[in-house]
Formats: sequence, C-alpha cells, structure tokens
Amino acid sequence: MSELANLTIMEVEALTDLGGGLNLTDGHARLVLSAQQAAIVERIPDMFTEASNRPFPDIEREAHAAFLGAIGQHSAPIGTGRILSCYSSTLATDIVARALPAGAVIAVLHPTFDNIADLFITRGLSLVPLFESALLAQEWPEPPVRAIVVTHPNNPTGLIVPEDHLRSLAEHAVRHGQTVIIDASFRGQVREAQYDTYAILEAAGASWIVIEDTGKLWPVHELKIGLLAYSERTRLPIERAFSESLLAASPVVLKFVTALAGDWVNGGYERARALVERNRAVVQETIRSAGLRLADPDSQISVARIGLPAGGPDSSVLYKEMVTRGVHVLPCTPFHWADPEGGLRFIRISLARPFEVVERGARTLAQAYRDLSVDAT
Amino acid sequence: MSELANLTIMEVEALTDLGGGLNLTDGHARLVLSAQQAAIVERIPDMFTEASNRPFPDIEREAHAAFLGAIGQHSAPIGTGRILSCYSSTLATDIVARALPAGAVIAVLHPTFDNIADLFITRGLSLVPLFESALLAQEWPEPPVRAIVVTHPNNPTGLIVPEDHLRSLAEHAVRHGQTVIIDASFRGQVREAQYDTYAILEAAGASWIVIEDTGKLWPVHELKIGLLAYSERTRLPIERAFSESLLAASPVVLKFVTALAGDWVNGGYERARALVERNRAVVQETIRSAGLRLADPDSQISVARIGLPAGGPDSSVLYKEMVTRGVHVLPCTPFHWADPEGGLRFIRISLARPFEVVERGARTLAQAYRDLSVDAT
Repeated sequence: MSELANLTIMEVEALTDLGGGLNLTDGHARLVLSAQQAAIVERIPDMFTEASNRPFPDIEREAHAAFLGAIGQHSAPIGTGRILSCYSSTLATDIVARALPAGAVIAVLHPTFDNIADLFITRGLSLVPLFESALLAQEWPEPPVRAIVVTHPNNPTGLIVPEDHLRSLAEHAVRHGQTVIIDASFRGQVREAQYDTYAILEAAGASWIVIEDTGKLWPVHELKIGLLAYSERTRLPIERAFSESLLAASPVVLKFVTALAGDWVNGGYERARALVERNRAVVQETIRSAGLRLADPDSQISVARIGLPAGGPDSSVLYKEMVTRGVHVLPCTPFHWADPEGGLRFIRISLARPFEVVERGARTLAQAYRDLSVDAT
Repeated sequence: MSELANLTIMEVEALTDLGGGLNLTDGHARLVLSAQQAAIVERIPDMFTEASNRPFPDIEREAHAAFLGAIGQHSAPIGTGRILSCYSSTLATDIVARALPAGAVIAVLHPTFDNIADLFITRGLSLVPLFESALLAQEWPEPPVRAIVVTHPNNPTGLIVPEDHLRSLAEHAVRHGQTVIIDASFRGQVREAQYDTYAILEAAGASWIVIEDTGKLWPVHELKIGLLAYSERTRLPIERAFSESLLAASPVVLKFVTALAGDWVNGGYERARALVERNRAVVQETIRSAGLRLADPDSQISVARIGLPAGGPDSSVLYKEMVTRGVHVLPCTPFHWADPEGGLRFIRISLARPFEVVERGARTLAQAYRDLSVDAT
C-alpha cells in the first residue's frame, strides 16, 4: 500500500484480496439476501421487460417516490426534474463539485469519508474543516465560505444532524448567501436521520443540494443509484455537469430500487437493523476483553469506530498487523482529512457483514491489539 | 434547449420527451432483445447468486477475457490489474482526464463526440484538434502535445484507424514521449476495427491507454461496463483517480457482460449487424427522395450522418424542425468541438432502433427537409 493510499484504495485491496482475507472495510452491505430480497432479485428479468415497455421518466419518478418516501423525505422535489439519478453517490458528489465555481471556499464536515473532501479538492475548490464540535455548537462558517457540506449521518462517527441544528444552519446560510449541501448517503439506515430534510431547507428559503444513496442499504452488488436533488434557488450549472457524466441511470436498477424500497417499509428496515445491531453488540463484547471500546456507542450506522487508548498501538500499526492476520479494516487517519493525526486513535470496522465474519474480525482485532500491547511493554 | 446545450443534454431531452416523440439521438442500442439475449436476461438472478458466492476478482477477470476476446483484443493485459472496470466509458474517460497533468496540451480527434473533448477541458487540459484528414495522412502532432486521443471507430463518422496508421502513431508517440489514448467504445460493432490494438501498441513500446465499452453493443438498459486499460509504461496516477470515482463495478453486470460476449461470438454479432445495416439501407433509400445522402456510406457503426447540401437548410434549422415534428436527432455542430460551423451541413441519426422507428424517422427527415427547402425558395 502506498503512503498516498486513500480509503477506497484500501477497500479495493480488501475486495481483491485473493488470499481469502476478511473484508471489513467498505460500508456496502455484503450480507446474505433476506427471503424478501431474494424474491425481488428473482423478478429482475420482469423489471428488464418493463424497462423496455414503459417511458423512462415514469420509471424514474416511481423510483424516486418509493425510495424517498421509504426514508421519510416526503418534501423532496419529485417530478420537478430537480432529482438526478446517478450511477452512485460518489458520482453525484463529483457532479456537485464540478458545478461549484472553481476556487470557491467551502466548509466540509470533519472528520468524514476522505473521498468527499478529495472530490472537492480535485475539482479546484478550497476546503476548510467544519468540526463536529462546531456543528453541535451551531457555530456555522462565515463568508468567504460559499457552501457548507455536511454528511448526515456522518461516516464514520454516525453523528446525526439534529433537526433544529439543520434549521439553524439553513437560516445561517440564507443570511450569508451560502449553499447547504447534505450528503445523506447513510440516512436510510437510521430512523432518527429521516426527518424531512427538504421541508426544513425549503422553509428556511435556502439554496440547497442533497445527495441520497440506495447503495448503503441492501446487498445489491452495486446495482444502486445515487440521487442528486437541488433547490429551485440553486443557480449552479448542475444539469450541464450531470450531462458530462452520464445520459441516464439504468431503468432496471430504478425498478429494483422501487421494489427494495417497498420491502424496506414493510419490515426490511427492522430486519436489516437487527443484523447490524447484533454485529455491533458482538464487536463491543469481543473487544472489551482487550480493553477496547466503541468510540461512538450511540452510532446506528453500519460501520463502527473503535477507540484505541493513548499509549497503546495506534491505528496505522494495528491496521498493518490486521492485514498480516488476513483481516482488512480501515485506519481512521484519512477520515481526518484536515488533520490526519487526529485519526490515529481510531480504527473502523464494517458491520454489514454476516455475523460470523464480524465476530471473527473482532476476535482478530482484540488479539492483535493485545499482542501489540505486550510487544510494546 | 439552451444555446449551451451539449449533445448529451439533447439526448436527455429526447429520452424524457413525454409527448411520445421518436428518440433517434443516442448511440445506445434501444432494440428488442434477440431470443438469445432474452434467455441471458432470464439468468440474471442466477448471476446475482454467483456474484455472492465467488470472489470478485475471478468474476472480473472472466468478464475481461470474454469481452476482450469477443472483440479481438487478445493482447489486452487481462489479469495484470491494469484493466479497471468502470460504470461507463464516460467515467473511464474522466478518470483518464483527471490522471493527466493539469494544463498539459493534448490532441483530440476532430470531429468526435463532444463529451470526450468536454471531459478533458473541464479537467483543465488544453486541447488541439487532430483532424481526420491529418490522421489519414499520418501527420501526427508534435510536442508540446503530451497525449493523442483517437476515437476508433470514430463517432459520428465511423472512421476506422487503419492498422498501419495506428502503428505509425504509436511509433511517433514513442519518439516524442507522448501517450496514445484510444477510445474504442464503438469497436465491438465493427469487425475491421477489431485488429489487436494492444499488440500493436506494445510492439511499438508505447505508453498507451485504451477505453473499451460494452454499452454500445446490446440493448441492456445501462447495465454496462466501461473498461480502462493502460500500459505498464504509463506513469499517470490512474489507480488513484479510479479510487476517487468508484470502489468497483457490479459483479452482476460483469457476469451479464460475460454471457452477452459469449452470444456475440456465437452469431450475436451477425444478428446485430443485420439489423443495423437494414436500418442504414432504409435511411439511405428514404432520404434519397429528398436529394439527401449518407455522408459516410462506408460507416459500419450504429449511427449515420446525413449530409445537407450547401444552400439548403442547415442542421440547426433542420434539428429544430424535426423536434416540432416529434423526432429527436442530433445536429452535428457539437461534434466539431473546435469548429462548430464545420458541422452545420451534417445531422446524425441513430440506427440501433427498431426498423419501424428508423424508417419513420427517416421519412420525417426527408419531408422536413423538402418542406424547409420549398420555404426557402
């Protein structure tokens, strides 16, 4: 692994490990299909036929309504043409980054998944961190900051932007002519994050962009959609940036999303939550033996940070040791994109995996940490 | 349509036209599935299961071998890690644009699909045109040009880079330290373009990048893959640019591509060619009545340019008239990205549509042209 590796490169290494290593890196659901999901997969050929026989805009609007409805976003601008279906939330983020004026200063939540910051930096924007503590204290960035980017819930901490905090942010942004950008890719996993974001942003009269993602919820092998929604007030050339990236998402995938969203409101959410929470519990229980704890015990998303006590091995040492033991996790320094050192005491493990995989990964982690601690004494 | 519209925006307008208009814009195959293809679609649920049970790198390598083998690219670097599977060829192009050093001068074939030039320009590269006439005369750009981008076969003209011309280009590039970049997205449609590009580039000792696309061959509703292959000599940060864009393509789509490639070498190619050539013939026949001709009678790709005689209505006038008559085609000015006026005498029509659709579109075109010509006299 190069010193310049980002989190996705480490995730690719885990995915392509032919040595049979455990992949506990990415936040994608790598789970066995539920019976209900398996029944939906069986219907893909029918969806293919329907994609051939119905107008694309009908299929797209139906998917937007089903998915956004399933995650509480009842005021999203369905049917207005201001929700663009992209191949992924990453591509949606890149389209936003391209549409922002080059050289503009934007504030981005810190820590957060490094790819979000990287995409903006690569497009020539100038970034300042918005620390989670500032968000919680409702201390919002002043101009020259032109846009404020918040991951909700945040990855990797699971922090949810409280409803009144979002209102405060939106009102602040209106006063200062700023755009509010919400990356809600993990929202579908957490009921508390599913209050109607669009209603709050619109009520404040904000210029806003919201990114939603179907890719973190279901074990769908990348058959997913990232949604890019924006307010009528948004004056950025988003449509043009979109047209540079793609013509259209797959109507087959849109049909698939519609069906999975239907299952999500019909018990699917609770079934998936039960799996993740069981896995979180076994991690918490297993690492306790090594004196380790979850850094964010209240987090409800499908990844967990484990805090590493000061004085013991840090996450870069532990990460490498874990790789030699055949388990891929993520060190947290890259999440701290403005201050990598700040991530040295955290390591991230994915929970959207079969129970046995998570349990084995947690046991290896506990053992590796114990062994490294003994070595160091 | 805004004055700033690019070709993809016009294609989106056609795709989302709810007035029942005919869409003869994009180069995607919008055809009825053959019996063989329909049987493959029926197996998608099984592919989903296999994607869950086999390592991703195995599935990916198998797809690369099947697809590249089906289009004659036997020397492609399968299994080396230097073929990246992207959501689309557009995304592959953008990854290349990002990996090139900002500010570098690159030569891009002219005319060609405007999106190719746009992606490079947006990433801060400086473009100079490589005219088709210069390519045919083997007059290759000198430094400071750092990379030479050729679409093979070209879109919209169907021009195939002859094998000895590619050799000459590769040897020129080696002498001048340039990178050869081939966008072979339409290659699968044309046997003559399927000589082993990789063997020629490697034999010359060139630094090369080749983009391949499964998305132009089959009516697969965007369940496609763009491949980004590069030489061992290529020193650009392609892997990092890839990791900023995606983690991995869908293994279900890779399985789907493997199956469709199997059909392609088993009669699928001939079946698809027969449909396209029948459609080209009916266009040629229908427009003759209005005094119009195919601009590229030897083209074998799934789009056709129609030449508009000097003195008559130009393509921007004819495009608008066609939209009012409910038929979406593409004016060719945007293809002439360095000289839009040069495209005024051409209009592009898609041939990968059901026969009746193409025939009706051609009839409307002939009638519109006749009516406009009468108006003008």
